[in-house]
Amino acid sequence: MAERLVNLPGMSAVEELIRSKFESDSSSLQEIPEYLFALGGKRMRPMLTLLSAAALGMRTPSPRLIEIAAGIELIHMATLLHDDIIDKSPIRRHKQSAFLKYGVPNTLLAGDFLLVRAFSLCARLDRHIIDATEQACVELTEGEIEEIPLFRAHLNVTEVLEIARKKTAALFRLAAESAAFLAVGKEPVLNCFLEFGEKLGVAFQILDDVLDVISTEDLLGKKAGQDLLERKPSVVNVLWLESGSELSKRLLTEPQLEGEDLFVAKALAELRHGETIQRARALAIKYAREAESALDAGLAQAPNKDKAYSTALYALIRYTTERLE
Amino acid sequence: MAERLVNLPGMSAVEELIRSKFESDSSSLQEIPEYLFALGGKRMRPMLTLLSAAALGMRTPSPRLIEIAAGIELIHMATLLHDDIIDKSPIRRHKQSAFLKYGVPNTLLAGDFLLVRAFSLCARLDRHIIDATEQACVELTEGEIEEIPLFRAHLNVTEVLEIARKKTAALFRLAAESAAFLAVGKEPVLNCFLEFGEKLGVAFQILDDVLDVISTEDLLGKKAGQDLLERKPSVVNVLWLESGSELSKRLLTEPQLEGEDLFVAKALAELRHGETIQRARALAIKYAREAESALDAGLAQAPNKDKAYSTALYALIRYTTERLE
Repeated sequence: MAERLVNLPGMSAVEELIRSKFESDSSSLQEIPEYLFALGGKRMRPMLTLLSAAALGMRTPSPRLIEIAAGIELIHMATLLHDDIIDKSPIRRHKQSAFLKYGVPNTLLAGDFLLVRAFSLCARLDRHIIDATEQACVELTEGEIEEIPLFRAHLNVTEVLEIARKKTAALFRLAAESAAFLAVGKEPVLNCFLEFGEKLGVAFQILDDVLDVISTEDLLGKKAGQDLLERKPSVVNVLWLESGSELSKRLLTEPQLEGEDLFVAKALAELRHGETIQRARALAIKYAREAESALDAGLAQAPNKDKAYSTALYALIRYTTERLE
Repeated sequence: MAERLVNLPGMSAVEELIRSKFESDSSSLQEIPEYLFALGGKRMRPMLTLLSAAALGMRTPSPRLIEIAAGIELIHMATLLHDDIIDKSPIRRHKQSAFLKYGVPNTLLAGDFLLVRAFSLCARLDRHIIDATEQACVELTEGEIEEIPLFRAHLNVTEVLEIARKKTAALFRLAAESAAFLAVGKEPVLNCFLEFGEKLGVAFQILDDVLDVISTEDLLGKKAGQDLLERKPSVVNVLWLESGSELSKRLLTEPQLEGEDLFVAKALAELRHGETIQRARALAIKYAREAESALDAGLAQAPNKDKAYSTALYALIRYTTERLE
């Protein structure tokens, strides 16, 4: 995806707008977002925004499209800063996390600062987008708070998928929906793209949970098995518990007795050779297929479309279930 | 002020709107803001908003006035939640702080949630108010981040007053400015009210710093001397250091050797009988006078005004330098 991202019309304008929003009289307020931004990232959300609008026939990205794409990425960045505080994550993308490098107070305030910047970007847009942004951000916060308690054994797969829908898919939905709103502006395309974005986001989150188990530190940019260690209600953890595995019960629902390395090694050994990962992957593929169907329907009813960018959107769906980092 | 607050037209609508914004599918996301709101508070910012508009002749508070008043208080509440995490404050208004009661992750996310709710309220208002809200929130975050490092001996009074202007006065300014914008809508009244709100906010913050030293646990709702313990660059601490006091140097710029109680007892004993507090009070009164002059000028040029509410605004200024909690 990396090369497509670089060449995507509007992406450099989005990145420039994002960086311009870091400007502050306070050096740390400016430095922390710059540090996080420089760590890189897939820029999935702006990419989805720009590709969706382009596929729907917007030949040149409009200023409002650039603004919402930048706003969504700024919101995402704010959540990354705050998530690292919540998870006490020391590493992000092979480097110290902002939380470790700058401490809780600075990182917390830098996240607030990015939220403010994002919202004032979005506030200048259409009422429809403002409402959609509020809904997405509320759901995002709800999804994150519902995920907080140490491993909650009573969560079932339906509940954990609802958390994924809120904490991750809400911003994906906002990206695709805003793009359709600005490119086409009306039903039924709008609703199809909203659905497309949401399903894509859930697939993306499920694969995130899978990668935490099957990928490598080299690709992840942090140690594998973090969701296990934190006993997060990830899709994988919940499926593992539901599989009836004795080990999952002992590791995830009882006080942690082993050291961290042993804990993760045992869990990974069982998970990597068991059916849980296959079931999670199948779930991701199911959501990706639903995303595809929604995209099919949206494009079929669009007044204009661009074949090359539609193809790129389908490639983006495939990427969410096949990516390795 | 308490009785005036209750009877102020629009205040119950503001409080109702604020509470309605706590609604969430996640129980903790709803519970934390409700807990904080129920702790009470002076509701200074909505009061300033409503009184300013009423003094400028707005007979019935308009829906937009109610919205900006609620939005500003929601922003203020978000900063209280995040401040408690930053300061690790266990007590607020005689009760456990949200941070202590609900933990860092929940409190952090509840603060984000309130910011989102506040911004989506403000985003529905006029462009002028959206821009002013962004500026105020950026300054607020800047003021707070500049205050973070353990006692920074190199800060002088000018710098610490600039921090007060940003972290506290920015929202006061937003309150008075938005009210003038909605009630009158144009210069020169707008600028005078902006100035009035800002000076009032600085006076309010200086007295906050003074009260931390001279008031009692009973009135403050938390132990006195917190700014000392945290070696905050408060106006009082900076003035104390500038006074050349040996004790201030030892307590504020060297590693803390005494236990907490002894530390605070020593500092309070010297401060309560020295000139530092008088100098800080004089500074608060200077800002209050400037607020008064700006209010004089604003009202003199206003097309309509209400005498009773103007009188209440002058009383609000006096209150900021005479209050005991």
